[in-house]
Amino acid sequence: MATEFDLIRRYFVRPTPSAVLGPGDDCALLQPTPDQQLAISTDMLVAGTHFFPDTPPRDLGWKTLAVNVSDLAAMGAKPRWATLAGSLPNADESWIAAFAEGLFACAQAYGLDIVGGDTTSGPLNFCVTVLGEVPPGKALRRDSGKDGDDIWVSGRPGLATLGLRFLQNKVELPPLWQKLCLASLHHPRPRVELGLALRGKASAAIDVSDGLLADLGHIATASGLVGDVILNQLPSLPQGIDRATALDCQLAGGDDYELCFTAPFEQRLRLAQLAAELELPLWRIGQLRTPNAPRFLNNPDDNNPSPPTIIPTENEVAGMVQVFGPDGEIIDFDHHGYEHFA
Amino acid sequence: MATEFDLIRRYFVRPTPSAVLGPGDDCALLQPTPDQQLAISTDMLVAGTHFFPDTPPRDLGWKTLAVNVSDLAAMGAKPRWATLAGSLPNADESWIAAFAEGLFACAQAYGLDIVGGDTTSGPLNFCVTVLGEVPPGKALRRDSGKDGDDIWVSGRPGLATLGLRFLQNKVELPPLWQKLCLASLHHPRPRVELGLALRGKASAAIDVSDGLLADLGHIATASGLVGDVILNQLPSLPQGIDRATALDCQLAGGDDYELCFTAPFEQRLRLAQLAAELELPLWRIGQLRTPNAPRFLNNPDDNNPSPPTIIPTENEVAGMVQVFGPDGEIIDFDHHGYEHFA
Repeated sequence: MATEFDLIRRYFVRPTPSAVLGPGDDCALLQPTPDQQLAISTDMLVAGTHFFPDTPPRDLGWKTLAVNVSDLAAMGAKPRWATLAGSLPNADESWIAAFAEGLFACAQAYGLDIVGGDTTSGPLNFCVTVLGEVPPGKALRRDSGKDGDDIWVSGRPGLATLGLRFLQNKVELPPLWQKLCLASLHHPRPRVELGLALRGKASAAIDVSDGLLADLGHIATASGLVGDVILNQLPSLPQGIDRATALDCQLAGGDDYELCFTAPFEQRLRLAQLAAELELPLWRIGQLRTPNAPRFLNNPDDNNPSPPTIIPTENEVAGMVQVFGPDGEIIDFDHHGYEHFA
Repeated sequence: MATEFDLIRRYFVRPTPSAVLGPGDDCALLQPTPDQQLAISTDMLVAGTHFFPDTPPRDLGWKTLAVNVSDLAAMGAKPRWATLAGSLPNADESWIAAFAEGLFACAQAYGLDIVGGDTTSGPLNFCVTVLGEVPPGKALRRDSGKDGDDIWVSGRPGLATLGLRFLQNKVELPPLWQKLCLASLHHPRPRVELGLALRGKASAAIDVSDGLLADLGHIATASGLVGDVILNQLPSLPQGIDRATALDCQLAGGDDYELCFTAPFEQRLRLAQLAAELELPLWRIGQLRTPNAPRFLNNPDDNNPSPPTIIPTENEVAGMVQVFGPDGEIIDFDHHGYEHFA
């Protein structure tokens, strides 16, 4: 049987043109680009917690790297390098080959080199660390949203969770939606181009990994503000899904890896152009607001001819995110939070 | 009960003065030192494979970081930053507190900031990625050992494995050695100062994590040479240990995290001085040689008055490492390789 070293060499060691020294030594050696900052993030994916143990290995390889690349996208950083550590219950060569295929497909798609790693025997588990580069002061942080900024989200939040529920036989989906939802679940496409384009435009950004409201809540908390989300400005999920499921998927569904970001009013036109350029829908779904400041029912910025209704607020603390219906009523949302796969 | 976020904030988020932006965003932001290269390494430690699940958590926290710092030491890199990802079967706060204490003690001892991380539920498992800096061309690589270079090792290889066997009730040890061996097993001290001092002196280096012969073999393979190790030039283990155990611990015992390095003859005096300065024994244990080149029984460099005996060799391939007894006989070593903890 092939040893661990053989398998690593065969499947995980590929040319690393962007590195001074690639895999095979105690460390890889990298030459950072002068005058850039490094963005670094690490994520662990555990079988039974983050994915089904029987997930097709090619999908799993893609996703293991993609969820990390998504953190670079959310920071507005250009992906450069990654390391992979994995614990495997057995050295099934065909499984490893397919996993590596998915991993390197993602690396190639986003321009990273896998410069180092570690494999060991143990429960199925992967840990990736990614490095990207961003000019000083240009990173998209969570803590710099401003009062009155629009809240935006890319793509169609909820698809991945809907796909998961479909696999769990909890919902039925038309064939075209099945494909869309499962692609979102198994083959997420981190929004790197969007993140790069948002440098200098967005005031704050995060990737939607824990659910839209939870992740927007992180921006609101870090920025000392509250978020008002208008439900019918969110992109819809397929008809025939019951309302509770739809809300839960859209607002609390994790694993989408879309970007949620905030930007000042003045960026609206530019962001609409950007959506067209990237062929990626960008939805303006609400606004950031100072806690306990009045809320406007018909936002005066929305080209609405009728005067805005001013609604007083109280008992708000920074980090709160509320969802409103078409008549300004609060949607009492039963937050299920992040769902484990077990 | 405290949530995951609470526990992370409470125990794993500490000030990170060396980072532009520390934990809490999608990525941490780092400003690399101009004109330095980055050394990066990642290691995964799995319960049952790399440590006993009941290892005291403070020791485990130290060791989880220390084994990664050791890779920086072996590269001659200055430790700068680390990320930690962990999978935990349950959120036992006192366990987490003790683990974090050990982790940050190690970070402080070696001057790293923990700039990011990820925790999740799952089988006990940790993954650390470390970043260090080294001037271009100064890194201690594996592939640059030269024919005739001395082979050196620091400390006393075998202690950690002997400690493991003591815990497994396979050997008895005098009390002082118990302490020494268990400290080496649970609280390894990566040889960062040594690695930094070896810049410009050593031709190649590696840390002894898989066992002295296996790791020296990596240098020999990468350098296209063979290694001759003289058994009685290795530091001894306590008397009363049977010979097979002693050999196995010294030559194949993993987990010591000493440095094995090669250096030209001219560095001998400087390295002896360095050992004194660092208060760390450095043992000259053999030489690198071109495969199938003759071997000298009494090395003429060794101040030996009698003329050297020239021994012809054959069928050698790069990467071979052989161990010789006092009369030049090959020690037929029964290589057990890396031992799992299960």
